[in-house]
Amino acid sequence: MYRTNTCGELRLGNAGMEVTLSGWVQASRDLGGMTFIDLRDRYGITQLVFNMEEDADLCMRARKLGREFVIQVTGSVRERTSKNPNRPTGDVEIVVSNLQTLNASNVPPFTIENETDGGEELRMKYRYLDIRRNPVQEKIIFRSKVALETRKYLSASNFIEVETPCLIKSTPEGARDFIVPSRINAGQFYALPQSPQTFKQLLMVAGMDRYFQIVKCFRDEDLRADRQPEFTQIDCEMAFVTREDILQTFEGLTQHLFKSILHLDLGTFPRMSYDDAMQRYGSDKPDIRFGMEFVELNDLAKDKGFAVFDDAELVVGICVPDQAEAYSNKQLNDLVEWVKRPQIGAKGMVNVKFLADGSIKSSVGKFYTDEQLKEWGHKAGAGANDMLLILSGETDKVRKQLNELRLEMGNRLGLRDPKVYKPLWVVDFALLEWDEEAQRFHAMHHPFTSPKATDIERMFSGDHETMKSLRADAYDLVINGVEIGGGSIRIHDRKLQEKNFKLLGFTPEEAENQFGFLLGAFEYGAPPHGGIALGFDRLCAMMKGETSIRDFIAFPKNNMGKDVMIDAPSPIDPEQLKELSLKLDVRP
Amino acid sequence: MYRTNTCGELRLGNAGMEVTLSGWVQASRDLGGMTFIDLRDRYGITQLVFNMEEDADLCMRARKLGREFVIQVTGSVRERTSKNPNRPTGDVEIVVSNLQTLNASNVPPFTIENETDGGEELRMKYRYLDIRRNPVQEKIIFRSKVALETRKYLSASNFIEVETPCLIKSTPEGARDFIVPSRINAGQFYALPQSPQTFKQLLMVAGMDRYFQIVKCFRDEDLRADRQPEFTQIDCEMAFVTREDILQTFEGLTQHLFKSILHLDLGTFPRMSYDDAMQRYGSDKPDIRFGMEFVELNDLAKDKGFAVFDDAELVVGICVPDQAEAYSNKQLNDLVEWVKRPQIGAKGMVNVKFLADGSIKSSVGKFYTDEQLKEWGHKAGAGANDMLLILSGETDKVRKQLNELRLEMGNRLGLRDPKVYKPLWVVDFALLEWDEEAQRFHAMHHPFTSPKATDIERMFSGDHETMKSLRADAYDLVINGVEIGGGSIRIHDRKLQEKNFKLLGFTPEEAENQFGFLLGAFEYGAPPHGGIALGFDRLCAMMKGETSIRDFIAFPKNNMGKDVMIDAPSPIDPEQLKELSLKLDVRP
Repeated sequence: MYRTNTCGELRLGNAGMEVTLSGWVQASRDLGGMTFIDLRDRYGITQLVFNMEEDADLCMRARKLGREFVIQVTGSVRERTSKNPNRPTGDVEIVVSNLQTLNASNVPPFTIENETDGGEELRMKYRYLDIRRNPVQEKIIFRSKVALETRKYLSASNFIEVETPCLIKSTPEGARDFIVPSRINAGQFYALPQSPQTFKQLLMVAGMDRYFQIVKCFRDEDLRADRQPEFTQIDCEMAFVTREDILQTFEGLTQHLFKSILHLDLGTFPRMSYDDAMQRYGSDKPDIRFGMEFVELNDLAKDKGFAVFDDAELVVGICVPDQAEAYSNKQLNDLVEWVKRPQIGAKGMVNVKFLADGSIKSSVGKFYTDEQLKEWGHKAGAGANDMLLILSGETDKVRKQLNELRLEMGNRLGLRDPKVYKPLWVVDFALLEWDEEAQRFHAMHHPFTSPKATDIERMFSGDHETMKSLRADAYDLVINGVEIGGGSIRIHDRKLQEKNFKLLGFTPEEAENQFGFLLGAFEYGAPPHGGIALGFDRLCAMMKGETSIRDFIAFPKNNMGKDVMIDAPSPIDPEQLKELSLKLDVRP
Repeated sequence: MYRTNTCGELRLGNAGMEVTLSGWVQASRDLGGMTFIDLRDRYGITQLVFNMEEDADLCMRARKLGREFVIQVTGSVRERTSKNPNRPTGDVEIVVSNLQTLNASNVPPFTIENETDGGEELRMKYRYLDIRRNPVQEKIIFRSKVALETRKYLSASNFIEVETPCLIKSTPEGARDFIVPSRINAGQFYALPQSPQTFKQLLMVAGMDRYFQIVKCFRDEDLRADRQPEFTQIDCEMAFVTREDILQTFEGLTQHLFKSILHLDLGTFPRMSYDDAMQRYGSDKPDIRFGMEFVELNDLAKDKGFAVFDDAELVVGICVPDQAEAYSNKQLNDLVEWVKRPQIGAKGMVNVKFLADGSIKSSVGKFYTDEQLKEWGHKAGAGANDMLLILSGETDKVRKQLNELRLEMGNRLGLRDPKVYKPLWVVDFALLEWDEEAQRFHAMHHPFTSPKATDIERMFSGDHETMKSLRADAYDLVINGVEIGGGSIRIHDRKLQEKNFKLLGFTPEEAENQFGFLLGAFEYGAPPHGGIALGFDRLCAMMKGETSIRDFIAFPKNNMGKDVMIDAPSPIDPEQLKELSLKLDVRP
């Protein structure tokens, strides 16, 4: 037996007990006659004390222990004279009578502290040391809690967790698949699932009624920061449901997770149509922790002789509260430069300050009278000391730009508190997106998404322009401007699914070849159904108020898709390729 | 809203209520003036009634509904005049006032009943229909329950569920890896994990203390019946533990699962050494639901002039109770033919019958006196009407043969009741197996298994023969003769791990190239640790008293590794291969 107790559980009430602990040497302090060691495990830190007078040999051995040595000690629990109120075990220490080194340690390449001196690359190479640090360990434990609560909640709501296969069929639609050569079936390949989409729909056809799975998904994308080739979803599907049933169910799940884990009451989630979200926030995932909603000024600002606005499709601004006096011209000029950066791409920015004394200052003061500018302020709800920031241009572009500016102002004014959570359902997305360049439609959600019931007739009978106006029965869950998940009511009718495939550019043969099993299933009593998938890594990060998902993943990959610790991917034995009936074809 | 209630919940107390139900048409009976429909969903079956006199039009429409049509009905709950006591909803029926067909269905290719007329291939092709059948649905729901209880129990025992990566590094040791070409890193490959072994060990080095995961694993093996290329493990690891801690913990988990789900008390699990298991049962996974333990007869049967026994390394038998009178000569001859089949491979079989009247009949009666045969019976504990079946030959071979015979006799005598569960820990396996053909050692468990503490010195200093005698700190959990899982205390010392790799034929370069990250981790304070992995598919099947795992997997693959429903694996677009810097190299 290596221990009677963990390093996190001894209290004053244990004083006098003989205990055995095992753990890592976190720190060691040598105070002449006494040596103190902080012994650490996952559960906490307990102070060990060695006394030169009582056992010189033992004390000498203790002094030689290095950081991160693994030791086992036996001793008696004693009340500390100088207590440490910051540590749950801070009232006691162990007077050690027996010490055994279980394993030595080299000096770690970075400090195992909350704040470490190790850079990203080094931490990833020695991830097993990085995870010893509290902030990383806490995130991994947090993730495990969120998973368990999710499972408990959904199981209690009659959902069945069903494991769907990892070795499936490659389909060119959507992102790129990772593929897996089959040895037994030479020249043939499995694909790793980008999501269990078709399987969960088949489970609905199979009568499972309510399905969920916390499941690994795979996308072979060119990696951006904070994208992982393998990621985890809370994947769900329900039969005999309307959108309302699904929103209620997963609003319930989200509320439960925040309540049970963070002790926070999220309240009822507001809903917003995609069109509204774009008009009011210039984003399909608005951060509604703060205001500064868009104010469209076409009717007031155009045709007054200011050519920039006259030529613009949309003149739109935000009202920044309480900053008219504080914001200097230099700051405003910096902000103009900021919006002109290529990442934002605005041509310029107009400001109107409503000063405390009632006067108005504006970068377009010579084109508009104070009365006209007051009307702008009136429409924007601007009060004394508020400031309008206005962009103009093509509608879609200017909305995106102003969205960026709004978020930036939210950051600068400290309005995006990571400990405040504002969930939102965005609904009524378009079904199809017209890709001007490729001259084809893309599914805005995915090819299995149903149009709204009221749009089905128009989908069968309408012309090309009609298709652009079809609404999907789709929805996204957004929290604090981050898309946590999305889903839709699915098509469950073969004819409608065929029509959708056709609109998306599939030939009947391609549709049959790739999704024949699903089309076939729709002919054997497919029930109405719909579902949702939540990004689990993202949800965990969001709940902890973090923006990066990386530390919520025990062994993440870097931006090149590499695991630098185990050195994967790596070349393989030529014999393996031969068995798989493959040859390398690497071009220089 | 598609339903106010499910098809499984209405009772007499609901009589008079107006309800809406949705589901599948299970059966329809047309009794002239009345039409009855059994409406089915996951939760049960509710009887619908349509009355020609009350609403002829509605009744006519109901008559046209085919099997597996999906319908929605509204009506009032009424007490049935002829109740069905075999159905929880059997006291009531719904007098339908409104009927809507939500989806039609073709005639299913097999009957959706507990006993179906569909063959395996057809059921797999239409798996979404097969899952509608109760026996399959129940198994999938059962699996989900076992998973949830496992997670609850382990989480309550301070285990953290950590997701380990699916895209890892290929290692030639063990079974064949599935590999995944990397597009971004041309010419390099990931492998799918055969188990998260090294990652869970790194999590122990990382201080996670107690890890578990219900996790998909992958092996590219030539498929035998009931092997799946992807399968699921309950994978666990603990730090600062001895074998005893691990056996206690997972005995506790197993007891909990049987208690909470099957309401069965398993009691304390007996333990048996590998050597004992082989000597007493000829198997490292003995079925201890019944006796017939091996009786070695060398001392009594050899050197008495019967050449077959004289030349044999081992003469060993089992005592079959109460069959001496019942077993005819024909049956015994059939049994001799049975053991001589190539799958068993015995040269013959000797029998000794101790008849009810005290007389003895034996196939070797002319070589041995009744007194001698009585001594055999005495050693075997044979009473009146018992029968000895004896094999002889090389020790290892004859034990395997007699194991098969013992299991066969257990089957024939109905001693292997699938509803009786007898767990067993098999311990003290050999560390290394000498492969005479390849002239090399194999790891009996895996290369990370520690020798028993008392054998470590001998491992560093011993000669070749010593290595064969090393015992591993390894253990298997066996229930009813099925290996449910296995594990070991791991090596946590770099030198010992290097020694083991060397014994297994790794050059230092190969060891470093494949497992350098683990060897490195052992130098930074690796704690003593060990773990276990339970076959989850197998455990679920065992608990349900089934021998096949296939129906516990929602979408299994066939013996060629194919999913015949989605048609995977399949050829891919040549463009995909090109992007992956690969070429097909299929030889005719």
